[in-house]
Amino acid sequence: MRLLTLARDLRRRKSREKQALFVAEGVRSVEELLKSDLEITGVLTAPQLDGALRGPGLRELIAQRHVDTTSVTELEFRSAAETESPQGVLAIAAIPQRDLHSLAGRDHLRILVLDAVQDPGNVGTLVRTAAALDADATIALPGTVDLWNAKVIRGSMGASYHHHAMHSSADNLFAFLEAEQVSFWGADTGGISVSDSVPQKKIALAVGNEGAGLSSSVHERVTQLVSLPISAQVESLNVAVAAGIILYQLRK
Amino acid sequence: MRLLTLARDLRRRKSREKQALFVAEGVRSVEELLKSDLEITGVLTAPQLDGALRGPGLRELIAQRHVDTTSVTELEFRSAAETESPQGVLAIAAIPQRDLHSLAGRDHLRILVLDAVQDPGNVGTLVRTAAALDADATIALPGTVDLWNAKVIRGSMGASYHHHAMHSSADNLFAFLEAEQVSFWGADTGGISVSDSVPQKKIALAVGNEGAGLSSSVHERVTQLVSLPISAQVESLNVAVAAGIILYQLRK
Repeated sequence: MRLLTLARDLRRRKSREKQALFVAEGVRSVEELLKSDLEITGVLTAPQLDGALRGPGLRELIAQRHVDTTSVTELEFRSAAETESPQGVLAIAAIPQRDLHSLAGRDHLRILVLDAVQDPGNVGTLVRTAAALDADATIALPGTVDLWNAKVIRGSMGASYHHHAMHSSADNLFAFLEAEQVSFWGADTGGISVSDSVPQKKIALAVGNEGAGLSSSVHERVTQLVSLPISAQVESLNVAVAAGIILYQLRK
Repeated sequence: MRLLTLARDLRRRKSREKQALFVAEGVRSVEELLKSDLEITGVLTAPQLDGALRGPGLRELIAQRHVDTTSVTELEFRSAAETESPQGVLAIAAIPQRDLHSLAGRDHLRILVLDAVQDPGNVGTLVRTAAALDADATIALPGTVDLWNAKVIRGSMGASYHHHAMHSSADNLFAFLEAEQVSFWGADTGGISVSDSVPQKKIALAVGNEGAGLSSSVHERVTQLVSLPISAQVESLNVAVAAGIILYQLRK
């Protein structure tokens, strides 16, 4: 039962941070995790996995990989799961140690900065989008939901495992951007149209909270605000859609 | 208690279709509904509304509008609510009667077609995105989640009330596109890059199911497949992000 207790414990951000472990939940997330380089501590399965699409195949794959596996009842699984309709599989893995310095010295950079983005689904989609559009990293500033939250992992569709998504303090990020001469842009109303912007070789693009937009500390730091012209009838775009459109425009 | 029973009943799609009514849930959705032209049948409130952000202001606005209002207990409200943490306000309103023919005879058209998109959050974001990027309509083909599902309404952030989002059979849509000489495009891997596409004056763009992509019947009908070049490490973009990028490229 050790893995069950651990999985339950890892639902708390503090525990994930302390243990440097996270939980990937559901068939798709665990499949992608097995394909990744991340170190897997163990897998928890429940009977309903056999009824899930690609469930039996995944069970076989787990057995082949000789991962430490514990079978629990549906009820026990539910006590550790974050999703409403759990598919009966979760894996515990080590949070990859990533560092801003791994991005130093490059000629070209595209960094997505999450400034207090709070919805785990949005953050997962943002990581997936940044990875898909060849951004080099996604940096989550304080106030942003934990990148290793199970719902973020699920929403990222496996991108969390290979894309350089990491947390950073604002000070560390700002120091890095300055040292590396990275232009710091913010997505906000009142900026110039992204289509009119002149792409730089190195850009970090900040997107803000779903309701409040960019924080004042980020707002003060950005050297360029970019906007997407939208219909007057709509207040804003979803943050992941907006980031996707801007990153697409700023592609290498 | 009539409104409470009605709200509970309207959680079923069949009931919404039969009564031509839908439910808008939460402070933001009800605020936007009060600003819209839609006919409001009544409002249900619960004590927790007073603790919600902008809740007391909304209560006042409802009173000013002389909308039929019923106060219920928190528990009763929960029995009608679709959300996990209901904010204590929902409104019942008439589903606006929209028709493909209202789009006939235009020189320029941008239509988003939802081909069995199943996640209500995605569909809400798609409606919001289409409205923000000045698409003229969003057409949901069979297999797509109900556009008047409370989670879709919530995700659309009010766009459902004014954007021409409507259901249609495939046959009716295809007949309309043919009669109006609208180019029918599909978003799918293996298409030409959207940046290389030659925009037409009238385009309907179909996006497919989150897992399966475009249905075979839509696939057979489209005259142009467009793709977004993405990293080989990522299987696909989220459907709303992909639609946002393509609609942005195809803007008037």
